[in-house]
Amino acid sequence: MIRLDATSPDFAAQFTALVNARREADEDVARNVTHIIKRVRDEGDAALRDLTRLFDKHDLDQSGWTIDRADCLAAWEGLTPELRDALELAAERIAVYHAKQKPQDSDGIDAAGIRLGARWRAVDSAGVYVPGGRAAYPSSVLMNAIPAKAAGVRRLVMVTPTPNGDVNPLVLAAAHIAGVDEFWRVGGAQAVAALAYGTHKIAPVDVVTGPGNAWVAEAKRQLYGVVGIDMVAGPSEIVVVSDGRNDPDWIAADLLSQAEHDPTSQSILFTDDAGFADRVAEAVDAQIAQLATAATARASWDANGAIIVVPSLVEAIPLCDRLAPEHLELACDDAEALFDMVRHAGSVFIGRYTPEAVGDYVAGPNHVLPTGRRARFASGLSVLDFMKRTSFLALDADGLAAIGPAAVALAKAEGLPAHAESVAIRLRNG
Amino acid sequence: MIRLDATSPDFAAQFTALVNARREADEDVARNVTHIIKRVRDEGDAALRDLTRLFDKHDLDQSGWTIDRADCLAAWEGLTPELRDALELAAERIAVYHAKQKPQDSDGIDAAGIRLGARWRAVDSAGVYVPGGRAAYPSSVLMNAIPAKAAGVRRLVMVTPTPNGDVNPLVLAAAHIAGVDEFWRVGGAQAVAALAYGTHKIAPVDVVTGPGNAWVAEAKRQLYGVVGIDMVAGPSEIVVVSDGRNDPDWIAADLLSQAEHDPTSQSILFTDDAGFADRVAEAVDAQIAQLATAATARASWDANGAIIVVPSLVEAIPLCDRLAPEHLELACDDAEALFDMVRHAGSVFIGRYTPEAVGDYVAGPNHVLPTGRRARFASGLSVLDFMKRTSFLALDADGLAAIGPAAVALAKAEGLPAHAESVAIRLRNG
Repeated sequence: MIRLDATSPDFAAQFTALVNARREADEDVARNVTHIIKRVRDEGDAALRDLTRLFDKHDLDQSGWTIDRADCLAAWEGLTPELRDALELAAERIAVYHAKQKPQDSDGIDAAGIRLGARWRAVDSAGVYVPGGRAAYPSSVLMNAIPAKAAGVRRLVMVTPTPNGDVNPLVLAAAHIAGVDEFWRVGGAQAVAALAYGTHKIAPVDVVTGPGNAWVAEAKRQLYGVVGIDMVAGPSEIVVVSDGRNDPDWIAADLLSQAEHDPTSQSILFTDDAGFADRVAEAVDAQIAQLATAATARASWDANGAIIVVPSLVEAIPLCDRLAPEHLELACDDAEALFDMVRHAGSVFIGRYTPEAVGDYVAGPNHVLPTGRRARFASGLSVLDFMKRTSFLALDADGLAAIGPAAVALAKAEGLPAHAESVAIRLRNG
Repeated sequence: MIRLDATSPDFAAQFTALVNARREADEDVARNVTHIIKRVRDEGDAALRDLTRLFDKHDLDQSGWTIDRADCLAAWEGLTPELRDALELAAERIAVYHAKQKPQDSDGIDAAGIRLGARWRAVDSAGVYVPGGRAAYPSSVLMNAIPAKAAGVRRLVMVTPTPNGDVNPLVLAAAHIAGVDEFWRVGGAQAVAALAYGTHKIAPVDVVTGPGNAWVAEAKRQLYGVVGIDMVAGPSEIVVVSDGRNDPDWIAADLLSQAEHDPTSQSILFTDDAGFADRVAEAVDAQIAQLATAATARASWDANGAIIVVPSLVEAIPLCDRLAPEHLELACDDAEALFDMVRHAGSVFIGRYTPEAVGDYVAGPNHVLPTGRRARFASGLSVLDFMKRTSFLALDADGLAAIGPAAVALAKAEGLPAHAESVAIRLRNG
């Protein structure tokens, strides 16, 4: 953990170093992923069979290529009533929030008598990647699948690695209430390639979303354009802006809720109270000791954590904008005024009773958010990621007479005579 | 040009081959682009200076790094009144259409007493790539710059190669009315890298859009995630659905308006009238001979053109959906009914008096559209490409009491105890 003071003479340089520090994996996976994609494209299911044997240590022909809907239902029925209720509350709130994101079509006739507009349609099919192992989260299943269903996607496909054939019953239960249509036991770059190009068994999809390791992220990056993808994701991060009047334990817990994700996660506190900064640092150390995820949280906090003391919280906001964090908590009295100033953040959590984790699960907004300063230009996952817009135009002879001559002039100036002629021929003979 | 008949026994296989035919450049530019990006990142302006000398044959320190606003104004004033009027009409109509795309913010309190919503903001800065040479189109300057301005982008940067130092006055004039803030004389992958990472002279931008050759497209693909980009673009294409009651010359002109773009462009006609198909094929050949762009149009039409006779136009629409064309013309009486059936197209041109070219220039909707079957999942350029959404959430103690316990249950089930604690600690002590 580093501690900075915004009034110190070398703060500008120190903060710039913090902003520019790279936490994303620099592993040279690109070449291996390229090779895997090529194999799946050339060999189809045979490549999936071989790579699953190699990486996941089971034989798809023995363990089965798919997870049945009946298995998902059984997993759902096997949950405790408390967990079933929690997943149902989450699913319902996520569905309500995302249904409101559906964009409006437009269709009208303008002053020149020209009809023009745009029409939104869902993609036909979407694939959701569900990681195996540490990051196999039922909440991520809901956060990816429900927006696709809200958009109107007809065919929702999930893929997940099942190392040694094992599946996570919580993930299956989430797939059940999210309404998955197909569920394949394949993972890694090979699963993304299968979704993009299709194989004999797996029909291709139009959009691939969902979290994954560096190989999955690189596969999505390489296949961007063959399919639609959600944003390339990096390690999770939180910035907390807190005055000195919070319980230091509350803020420490918030910082640790990101730190426990991964050693590359980042938690940063801005406060205008140096004494409070001390107390939070102590509380973090005390709480880490109690966590089952202590090793991860400790590694993240030590390597990437930061506490920054600012003269006033208002001065923290431009610094937050430079970080463009995935999650931004404003835990102070004047949170609303600070929120008005924020330009770049994936999601903002306003006030002392809005810990970021409540947004991870049950609040409704999506928890798939831009990381690594990408909130400067990217948005969280939404129904728009599963829809596309078709613009349209309808002219009659009068409308073409009104605006066609300008098109002819511009086409000629650009050296595109057939463009000009396709308009001019109608103006001459219309 | 190939000619298919939808009633022939081998049509399904022939059409699938047409759908899957790759027209996109398979050049191995990726490695060179990776190298250029690394050089610009490491060496900054020195790399731009060297690469411009190598590729564009001029010395930036001699010819100047930037194009002044005064030069853009002078180019504008040098245009004929007809061209000035045409550009002004285009700019105004594009601005009106795109202003309506600005998304609504949401902010409300739900039944559980929880405030939640989403807020849209423009990115701070955007870079528009403007090609040199054959594809230096003022219309593309307008189509990229005006949506950025409509979104509210504060800093709009253009880059363009100026081979041998030469600039295209039409492009400068378009930059003038589009309101460019900075204009740099750099092009190729090196310009995209400079926009993404920034150099000493050029501050980085948040989003890069605009057409370019294979090197530019590959640079955008590789830098996706460092900056936002618009969709990866391939060769242009048009599908025309026509009954037998159009003038064959009109439809031939429409097909040629795409064919003249590039040898890799594609023009496809569906018609329910075999005699009309013959007449269009003859008209295409007759018109090509008259074009200044004859060589390009001929190469495109011969290699990629297609005429497909269908039993009825209704049967053409599912085939069009498989092609998911960039441009779709419906030139027939029942165009509206066909349009209702269309699922996948970048832009649709309805009726006999709506040639695609009018949409390229002055109609208002964007001419930057998804190519290569990407209309299955992608949309044309819009103000959304220059904006991003921040979701937000504000709970009080009662709201957290209502939904917090479910978050605690799910966090524990996912093995994330610090997530659970950040909520539970507030429930215990709130």
